This record gives sequence, C-alpha cells and structure tokens, in this order.
Amino acid sequence: MAIPTGPEQLLLELFAIFVSAKAVGEVFERIGLPSVLGEILAGGLLGPYALAWVPISDTIHSVAELGAIFVLFSAGLETSPRELIRIGAKSLSVAIAGVVVPFILGFVYMKMRGYVNSESVFVGAAMVATSVGITARVFADLHLLSTETAKIILGAAVFDDILGMVLLAIVGGMAAGHVDWLHMGVLIGEAAGFALFMLFVAPRIVRRMEPSVEQLSMQNASLIVALAICLLLSWLAVKIGIAAIIGAFFAGLVFADYAPQWNLIPRVGGITEFLAPFFFFLIGTRLNGSLLTRETIISALVVSLLAIISKLIGCGLPLIGQGWRQVLQVGTGMMPRGEVALIVALVGLQSGIVSEPTYAIVVVMTAVTTILAPPLLRILFRREIDQDRDSHIPEPVRL
Amino acid sequence: MAIPTGPEQLLLELFAIFVSAKAVGEVFERIGLPSVLGEILAGGLLGPYALAWVPISDTIHSVAELGAIFVLFSAGLETSPRELIRIGAKSLSVAIAGVVVPFILGFVYMKMRGYVNSESVFVGAAMVATSVGITARVFADLHLLSTETAKIILGAAVFDDILGMVLLAIVGGMAAGHVDWLHMGVLIGEAAGFALFMLFVAPRIVRRMEPSVEQLSMQNASLIVALAICLLLSWLAVKIGIAAIIGAFFAGLVFADYAPQWNLIPRVGGITEFLAPFFFFLIGTRLNGSLLTRETIISALVVSLLAIISKLIGCGLPLIGQGWRQVLQVGTGMMPRGEVALIVALVGLQSGIVSEPTYAIVVVMTAVTTILAPPLLRILFRREIDQDRDSHIPEPVRL
Repeated sequence: MAIPTGPEQLLLELFAIFVSAKAVGEVFERIGLPSVLGEILAGGLLGPYALAWVPISDTIHSVAELGAIFVLFSAGLETSPRELIRIGAKSLSVAIAGVVVPFILGFVYMKMRGYVNSESVFVGAAMVATSVGITARVFADLHLLSTETAKIILGAAVFDDILGMVLLAIVGGMAAGHVDWLHMGVLIGEAAGFALFMLFVAPRIVRRMEPSVEQLSMQNASLIVALAICLLLSWLAVKIGIAAIIGAFFAGLVFADYAPQWNLIPRVGGITEFLAPFFFFLIGTRLNGSLLTRETIISALVVSLLAIISKLIGCGLPLIGQGWRQVLQVGTGMMPRGEVALIVALVGLQSGIVSEPTYAIVVVMTAVTTILAPPLLRILFRREIDQDRDSHIPEPVRL
Repeated sequence: MAIPTGPEQLLLELFAIFVSAKAVGEVFERIGLPSVLGEILAGGLLGPYALAWVPISDTIHSVAELGAIFVLFSAGLETSPRELIRIGAKSLSVAIAGVVVPFILGFVYMKMRGYVNSESVFVGAAMVATSVGITARVFADLHLLSTETAKIILGAAVFDDILGMVLLAIVGGMAAGHVDWLHMGVLIGEAAGFALFMLFVAPRIVRRMEPSVEQLSMQNASLIVALAICLLLSWLAVKIGIAAIIGAFFAGLVFADYAPQWNLIPRVGGITEFLAPFFFFLIGTRLNGSLLTRETIISALVVSLLAIISKLIGCGLPLIGQGWRQVLQVGTGMMPRGEVALIVALVGLQSGIVSEPTYAIVVVMTAVTTILAPPLLRILFRREIDQDRDSHIPEPVRL
C-alpha cells in the first residue's frame, strides 16, 4: 500500500496528550485542585519516566513552546501597561530580593554540606528562576489577572527573567571556563532596553497604528497583526537572550488597550486553549521521580524547602507593609521553578561541574515547587475568588 | 555562552511565513484577487524553488497540516449535517462524474501521446483528486459557506476523497506490483461506514452529550471537547485511509448545531487564522516552476486545460438542470488539485512508473488549477457576494 501515513502518528500524539491532560485536569478540578496541576501530572504519568506511553517528538516540543507563548500572550492582553508601570517599583524589588535570597540560601546550604564553590553556585542559580507560565495559567483560570498581586508577579517575572539571564550567563561562562563580562553587559543593556521600549514606547506605536490596521483589506486584520507581533517579539526576546514567553507577554501588553475593541481575548483564548495543554503536559514529562534515591532524598527535600521559603522571604519581604496575605500570595506565585532551573542544572551536568546526585536534587526541587504552587495559590486567593464569584453569579431568584 | 537557542530558529520561521503570507495576501486583496492566492504565491516566492529564503522544517509541515485541519473544521462548523444529507445525492453524483471524467480525459490524452498504460493511469489518477482546503477557504473569506453550492462542493469533496483513496490504492498497488482488491474493499467499507456514522449517528450522540459537557468543571469545556473530537476524527480518518481534513470536516459537522450556543466559531476561528497561512504557504512551496521545460510545456498546458475542462464537465454535468452558473461554480470549486495529485505523481515517480517529464506535467497541472480556482470563484460568485454585502452594510446616512 502506498497511502502516506506520516500524519497518523502526529495526530494520535496530539490527541493522546490533549485528552489525557484535559481529563486529569477535569478530575483535579472536581476534587478541588487546580486543573493545571492535573495537566502537569498527566505528563508525569504518561511521560518517559513513568508509563512512557506517549513519545515526545520535536513537533510536540514546538507545539508546547507555542502553548507557553500563548499563555503569556493571553495574560499580557489582560494587563494594562500603565498599571504595570505604576507597580513597577514594587515588581522590581520583589524580583531582586526574589533572586538574591534563594541564591544565597541555596549556595550557603550546599557549601555547608561540603560541596565546592562552583557546584554550589549552580544549585543557587537553579533556585532563582521563576517559571511564570504556571502562575499565569492559575490566575487566568481563577479570573485573578486583574488583581494588583497578579500584576506585581507578572511584572516581577519580567525582571526576574532578565536577572535569570544574567545568572545563566555567569554559570554558563563558569561552565565554559570564563565569564565574558562585557558580552554580559551588552545583554543586560539589550534586555533592559527591550523592556523599557515595550512598556513606554510600543503602546503608543500601536495607538498610532490603530487606524491603519482597521483599514486593512484582509479579514480579521486586527487578530492577524496581533499574532504577527506576538511571533516577532517572542523571537526578538530569544534573540537578545531572554525567554520567548517574556516577549509574548510584552506583545499582549502592547495590545491590551485594544483587546476589547478588537475582540482579541476570545480569539487568542481559543489558540491558548488548544496549545497550552501541550506545554503543561511537557513540564510533567520532565519530572523524573526515579532520581530520588535514598542518598539524595534529604538534601532534595531540604533544598525544596529552602526554595519555597526563600521565595516567600525574598519576594514577600519588599511587600511586608502590605500585610501577610499579599506577602504569601506573591511569594507563592513566584515559587514554581519550571524549565529554567532544569536548563541551569543541565548546563552544569553537561560541563561536569554538577554531579548526578546534585542534578537530581535540582529536578526534585523543580517538581516540588511546580506541584505545590497551584494548590497553594488557590488557597491563598480564596477570598478574591469568592468575591469574583459573588460579583458574577446573579442572586438566586426567590419563588 | 550557554543560553539555549533552540526556539530562535523556529520562531523566526513562523514569523517569516506568517507575515509574508499575510502581506502578499493583503496586496492581492487590494488589487481584487483572493488573499489565499497571495498566501500560496508567498510560499512559491520564498520557498525552495525560487528565493529559498525560508527553510521548511518538520515542525512547519506539522503546523501546516494542523492549519488544513482547522480550515476544514471551521468549514464543518458552519455546515449543518441535515442540509448536507439533503443535498447528498447531488454531491455524490458531482463527485462520481468529477472523478470519472478527469480520469478518462487524462488517461486518453496520455495514451494518444504514446505513453504506456501504467504511466497514463497515474496521470489520470492525479487529475482526479480535489484539494478542498483552498475552496473552503475562499468560501469562508467570501461568507459563502451557507450557500447550497458550497454545501454541494463540500459534500462532493467527502465522496471525492473516498474515491481518491480507492484510486490511490489502485495506483499504489500498481506501483508495488499488484493490487490487493480485498484490502481495498475493506478500506472502502470502512470509509463509507465512517462517513455514514458521522452524518447520521454522531450528531445525535453530541445532542445526548450536550448536558454532560455543560456540567464539566473545566473552563471552556465545550471548546475543549470540540477540539478533542476534531483531533480524534482527523486521526481516525487517516487511520482508515482517508484524508485528515475529511475527518476534521466531519468533526465540525457534528458540532455545527451547537456552534452558536457554545460560541465555537470565533474561538476555533482564532486557531484557524493562526495556523491556516502555514498550510497555504506550504502549498506554494511545492509549486516548482523550473520543471516547466520546453519539451513538457505543451503537454503540461494541455493537461492543465483538460484538468480544468474535465472538472467543469464532470462536476457540472449532474447539475445541468440548475443552470449554467451553478455548473460553473461547482466545477470551479472542485478544480484545485493540491497535495493529493502531487502524492499520486510522487508515488509513480518513486516506483519508476512515472518519468521525470510526466511528473513535471502533473506539478504544472496542480499549480495551474490551484492558482486559477480562487480568482475564478470570486468572479463566478460576484452576485452572491454583492447580495451578502448589501445585507450587511447599512445604508449610508444622508446628511
């Protein structure tokens, strides 16, 4: 037979991942846990380290990456740049303290356990980076993207990513033998310039562009322009060394003021609903529980605990005047480490600076922070969720 | 430096393809030609046979395939299964005559030119298959999916795909040395059973499912169920030997009655807007103009002309009682050959039955029918387009 069977495998993979992620998500939602956690655990369950039912092809990786980009693009569309600028100072202090405290705690703990400087630096660096995709999804699910806390966290994630890039450059330089400080300065300048341009200049350009967009002859012109800018800024972000999702968040931000008028949120939301489950499933496939041996389990749990405490202290400290609830909310929102921690650990492992057991510790720390954050956020935001529900559901009609 | 650069290339490719397709589409729209033709020609221009600016990776292929799936899924969502059943007999006769006439004309012409039987069969088979994605997109752009002609064409495309599968099995069997008639009978039975199930049973299942879907705890449950079924049926279609896009069209069909209530059209439409340009761009990248040498040009143009005439006669003949306009509309809508013709020709080329010059003839025929159909459809539907415009645009306000 000569019927081409190329697409069969891909479609089956897409179906299996989409449905298993959503099915476990639905079960979690029903027992009162966040659906995103279910999607992550579906990946852990079916991924290579457990049942190994679903192979993860290159295409699935790419689709998952687009999923993460659209999660942040959607979050950006619901975030006004003006408000982000208003809480900018808070976000910056949250990001800085949220980088410094985890790094120091991780580094000091590893030194105390007798590891050499370079390996301790890697563990510290892995404890720094925030995986904001998970938090953004939890906020979107709970309709909390418009709260000040959500904006502080999303803003801090932008700074955090720039600081994370600097740390990655330092540890990468250590792995390669020397740190290129000049090149790093250029990177920082580019990233800061990009962020400032996006916050202060780009929304004005969109305001100027608006009449031209509405004059375009193509159908759905506003959606197409927004999608094109999302792809452009995601690429540009990677190009200058920060994460694609940060570029996508900025793209959402610059269109946020036109999102209602251009009806962008349901249409971009459709894309996000389709692609995002692949991202969360893929995060799950990377959680390798079998690395947890008897020798590493105590260190792994201590490092996980430090990872949690350090973000609570680091991210919460600058907000201590706002009351304990916001301290805990922001600290928990910044808690998931996700893929950046794994990349840092992998760079160390491949260069021989980080040993296998230490790599396992970082993987466990990533798993613990990633899995704990969504249910904790749900508990900490219970009051806001109830308020939101009250304001949406009409009073029951009295008969 | 250790910053991972994997996503950079992919995002740049996605951006370049999306923007070039949409930009050329916009230019075409402004000069009165269909934007889909611009998207195809952008692929021809930047693809490997011309400027070769954009490499086509496996991921781009997969994204393009998903794009085609969503074009047909969207078209299905706007097509009521009851109406498709009502015009079923017309569609079937259009499909059968639209397969028989092109095959005979192609076969006879090649025999007259002195080719052997087997090579003539391949050219005949390549002239049969309709690439309905292009027509569905033109109808969607022109808001014509609700017309009877659109339904006849989409219905005929379903039958056409089943008949095309049979022909592909015959020519594939010829390429392999013998045709497995029993296996082919099973394939036909499966495909027919699939189509009948989708038209008569599946919409009832969805009606039964509806209350359960609305009780799901996950957000956007209706959209997620529809997307899951779309992936499932696309995979199932490929599994039983017909095209993924036919499965996707059926998936749209079974949800068509709930599309307004579940607000599916804008949200699925967002996904289609994002993914479809990659499909049309990819069609363009396969149009290899350099194959057109002096020796083959006359045969190629004659075969192209026969490909056009044979679909007009074959698809139009059963509708002759409906007047010339509908004959021309349906025949033109069934005209583009697209990827199926290329697959048939490639199977023949790889097995040595089809020579290089004959392969070139099929490629040119595909290019000509694909490029001519969108502008011809626009001309033939001018009356319907004007009516649609009149019913949508309010009278200018008199001052």
